[in-house]
Amino acid sequence: MSLRPMIVVMIVMAGAGQADPLPSWNDTDAKARITEFVARVTDVDGDSYVSPAERIAVFDNDGTLWVEQPVYTQLLFAVNRVAELAREDPSILTSDALKAAAAGDIKGVFAQGRDGLFEVISASHSGISVDEFTEVVQGWMQTARHPDTGRAFDDMTYQPMLELLRYLRDEGFTTYIVSGGSIHFMRAFADAAYNIPPQQVIGTILNSSYQVIDGDPVVMKDPGLFFNDDKEGKPIAIDTRIGRRPIFAAGNSDGDFQMLEWTTAGEGARFGMIVHHTDAEREYAYDRDSSIGGLERGLDEAGDRGWLLVDMAEDWKTIWSSGE
Amino acid sequence: MSLRPMIVVMIVMAGAGQADPLPSWNDTDAKARITEFVARVTDVDGDSYVSPAERIAVFDNDGTLWVEQPVYTQLLFAVNRVAELAREDPSILTSDALKAAAAGDIKGVFAQGRDGLFEVISASHSGISVDEFTEVVQGWMQTARHPDTGRAFDDMTYQPMLELLRYLRDEGFTTYIVSGGSIHFMRAFADAAYNIPPQQVIGTILNSSYQVIDGDPVVMKDPGLFFNDDKEGKPIAIDTRIGRRPIFAAGNSDGDFQMLEWTTAGEGARFGMIVHHTDAEREYAYDRDSSIGGLERGLDEAGDRGWLLVDMAEDWKTIWSSGE
Repeated sequence: MSLRPMIVVMIVMAGAGQADPLPSWNDTDAKARITEFVARVTDVDGDSYVSPAERIAVFDNDGTLWVEQPVYTQLLFAVNRVAELAREDPSILTSDALKAAAAGDIKGVFAQGRDGLFEVISASHSGISVDEFTEVVQGWMQTARHPDTGRAFDDMTYQPMLELLRYLRDEGFTTYIVSGGSIHFMRAFADAAYNIPPQQVIGTILNSSYQVIDGDPVVMKDPGLFFNDDKEGKPIAIDTRIGRRPIFAAGNSDGDFQMLEWTTAGEGARFGMIVHHTDAEREYAYDRDSSIGGLERGLDEAGDRGWLLVDMAEDWKTIWSSGE
Repeated sequence: MSLRPMIVVMIVMAGAGQADPLPSWNDTDAKARITEFVARVTDVDGDSYVSPAERIAVFDNDGTLWVEQPVYTQLLFAVNRVAELAREDPSILTSDALKAAAAGDIKGVFAQGRDGLFEVISASHSGISVDEFTEVVQGWMQTARHPDTGRAFDDMTYQPMLELLRYLRDEGFTTYIVSGGSIHFMRAFADAAYNIPPQQVIGTILNSSYQVIDGDPVVMKDPGLFFNDDKEGKPIAIDTRIGRRPIFAAGNSDGDFQMLEWTTAGEGARFGMIVHHTDAEREYAYDRDSSIGGLERGLDEAGDRGWLLVDMAEDWKTIWSSGE
């Protein structure tokens, strides 16, 4: 850069406070608490001001940014992929869990317990380069349909959460996904669906290796789990990856408890938020007894800890990004 | 944001090409190759244009951004820390490697082999929260001195590389450290020394755990190695952390070979660079036979692979950021 000053004229849109940044949120306490928090931490003259570099916001994905019922989207992908691989080579079906997966029998997969479940994930997420895997997931997302609604999965992201992500970014936050979903699976759609680039996607890490195949270096996806980004794993992953304690965390299940606990225990203004699935008509209603997205401790302690419990039925005007 | 347009006037410095962005580089071929590459990938109308989001540049740390001879700085820290911990509690010296460390006998530590070395790293980097550890490293950096020059370590970063980092950032690149050094150690100084924030520091990961101590949640540093960010580990870490293949990679030893190989094998314009330590007068001269920063394959293959071999003695006008 030279030292010669130059005048640059830019046309930008006027700042916040003009229009409603969260139009799909009803005018309830939830929305007011969010906008008040953002106003506090961005007020340069206030006691709670946080510099943009420290405005880290972390979001769980399944059940927080998009639908997770009746079964995690990534598991549906895994089951479909095992069936596809088995059509090419039936000899891969070496266990009851894999056979159930190939038959599209998700209950049968669950019947084989945690090991069976992981066998299906492992078989469907390995033996392929990261670049090829990304294409496979993106192709699947174009044709796969939700078992209850028949809609595409990227139509089943939550519109109020998309608005919240955008609002926080407009206010100088950096938004991260911190999810139990696996990194390569989520990256295949996170940029398009949420405007979250790959370096801001934190998740479960499956094994990989560096290989030079016919002179062409690639990162290959291998069987096995390297890091489970759930519960205590979430603060550890955030520390390892971001290196700063977030000031805003949103989740929906007890798998997010430690992430919210660590976030909100920091000094200064902090925000913890739980999306409570209360809307059986427009989405699903579940919490304590659900095997997917179970929420018990978070529900019991949210009040005392000052975490916002978002009531989907009451607080959200619209649920789906597709508008339906 | 509202839709009301607003005029904003900003005063900025005029763009590139006015002043020399790399004043500490001599006017040799090395400098010309770097600036030509940057001009190519930032030329919107050219065939080699790369969007800012894809302008990922990765840098090894030890021997690439700062001194690594006669021994890695982090190992000096580890030895000092073991001595300090042993003054409080001599019973921690349970092995010959730890005893050698406490006596400041680095050769004695090396004599215990890789396991002994790791024992010293592990003991000196655990049993403490991440926040406390950061303070310990920062305190050590203020008083520790290089064994040959007597200078502070942050005065022994390479001025030409600081200029290169800044130049790339000014041209829209995002700069990352990808080093065998451990993440928490490097983060303690990377922002101040290199203007590289914590989320852009990738390195070896030592174990950690999430604990709630007297109601206060912390990330604790534990004994043991979780991920070794060296050789094949570097492309894997870049894929896991950044999720994009870099277009620019700089290293100095064969531990960086795979990172440069993977980076430069991508499509489009790519840049691989090896800092070759050729300056025994101003710094150190070492390559093939060095136990620290050994460079053999990189030296043999750099020419055929089109990687720039930077000759420190010939290509760098100044070595140290301290100006000396």
